[in-house]
Amino acid sequence: MTIALQERLDAQITFAMEIDKLKRIIRRNTLIDGSRRENDAEHSWHLGMMAMVMAEHAPPGTDLDKVVAMLLVHDIVEIDAGDTYIYDTVAVEGQAALEQAAADRIFGMLPEDQCRRMRALWDEFEERRTSEARFAKALDRLAPILANHHNEGGSWALNKVTARQVLEKVQIITEGSPALGEFAARLIESSVANGHLAP
Amino acid sequence: MTIALQERLDAQITFAMEIDKLKRIIRRNTLIDGSRRENDAEHSWHLGMMAMVMAEHAPPGTDLDKVVAMLLVHDIVEIDAGDTYIYDTVAVEGQAALEQAAADRIFGMLPEDQCRRMRALWDEFEERRTSEARFAKALDRLAPILANHHNEGGSWALNKVTARQVLEKVQIITEGSPALGEFAARLIESSVANGHLAP
Ligand SMILES: [Ca+2]
Repeated sequence: MTIALQERLDAQITFAMEIDKLKRIIRRNTLIDGSRRENDAEHSWHLGMMAMVMAEHAPPGTDLDKVVAMLLVHDIVEIDAGDTYIYDTVAVEGQAALEQAAADRIFGMLPEDQCRRMRALWDEFEERRTSEARFAKALDRLAPILANHHNEGGSWALNKVTARQVLEKVQIITEGSPALGEFAARLIESSVANGHLAP
Repeated sequence: MTIALQERLDAQITFAMEIDKLKRIIRRNTLIDGSRRENDAEHSWHLGMMAMVMAEHAPPGTDLDKVVAMLLVHDIVEIDAGDTYIYDTVAVEGQAALEQAAADRIFGMLPEDQCRRMRALWDEFEERRTSEARFAKALDRLAPILANHHNEGGSWALNKVTARQVLEKVQIITEGSPALGEFAARLIESSVANGHLAP
C-alpha cells in the first residue's frame, strides 16, 4: 500500500470508529413493537431499506442509490448536536448552528474529497431542493408515523402532539411522494378515529 | 392511487414493519465504546457507511451502490434464524436451512419482483462470487475486529477465540480487499502483542 493510500485508510477508519457513536443517539419514538426508544443508527438503516422497497413511489427519474446514501448520512451530525424533536420549535431553531459545527468536525475527519461528498449529501438532504432529498425526507417523516400509529399514539401521546401538527409534517411527505403522503394521511385519520391522536 | 399500486404499497409497508425486528437481534460484539452489545440493524447501517467511505479499497469496477444495498439486506434473515457467531462452527452448520426459510418468509412479504431482487442480493452476498459480494463480506468481517481491537479483545476474549481463528477470517477480508486485509492483519498482530488476543 502506498503511504498516501495508507493515510487515507487511516482517516477512513478513524471516521468509521467515530460515527459508531450514532448508535447511542436516542430518538423520541420507539421501535415498532414499542419495546424501547430507537437510536439514530438503526433508524438510518431502516430508512435506507424503506427507500429500496418504496422506490416506485418516488417521482420518475429519482436516483434511488443517492437517496439511500443520503439517508445513511442524514443524522450523523446528531452525534454532536443531539436529536431534536420535530415538534419542539424552540430546540429546532438553535439546532442549525450546532449541526453545522458537527458536520465540520465529523465529516472533517475524512480525506478532503470525501469530506466534501458527505457534506454535499447532507446539505442536499437538508435543503430539500432535489427529488432525491424530498423523497428521503418523506421517508424520514413517515417512519415515526408508522411506529406511533402502531403503538396507540406512542410518542405523540407522550409529547401531547395533535393531528394538526402531524398533518403539517404530512405536507413534507406529500412533497416527496404523493402516494406516501396519501398513505400517511390515512394513518393519521385512523389514529384520530381510534382516540390515539388528539384532533 | 390505483388499486394495484395501493396493494404494492401495503405489502411494502408490511415488510418495512416486519424488518423493524432486526433492531432486536443482538450480536456478540459490542459497540466501539464497549457500552453494550450491538444489534443487527445498527451494524448494517455501520457497514453501509463503511462501504461508502472505503470504496477506493474495493477492486476497480466494483459497483458500490450494490455493495451498500447488499449490506443493508445481508442480516435480515437473522430476524428468524438469529445471529450465528462466526467462531461457533456447530451453529454455523445448522444455520443455512433456517436462513433459507427466513428468506422465503420475510422477502416473501414483498411484491414478487421485489422479493426476487432482495433474494438475489442476499444470495449474491452469501455466495461471495462477485467483487461486490466479496467486498461487502470483507467489511462485515472487518467491523468486529475494529471493535474488539479497541476493547482489549472484547468478544474474542469473552469467547476464547485465538489469533489463528481470527486470521482465517482475515483471509476473507483479503479476498474482498487486499488493503483492508493488510490493515486487519496489523490490528490482530497488535492485539496479540498487547495480550488482548491469544496467539
Ligand atoms: Ca451476521
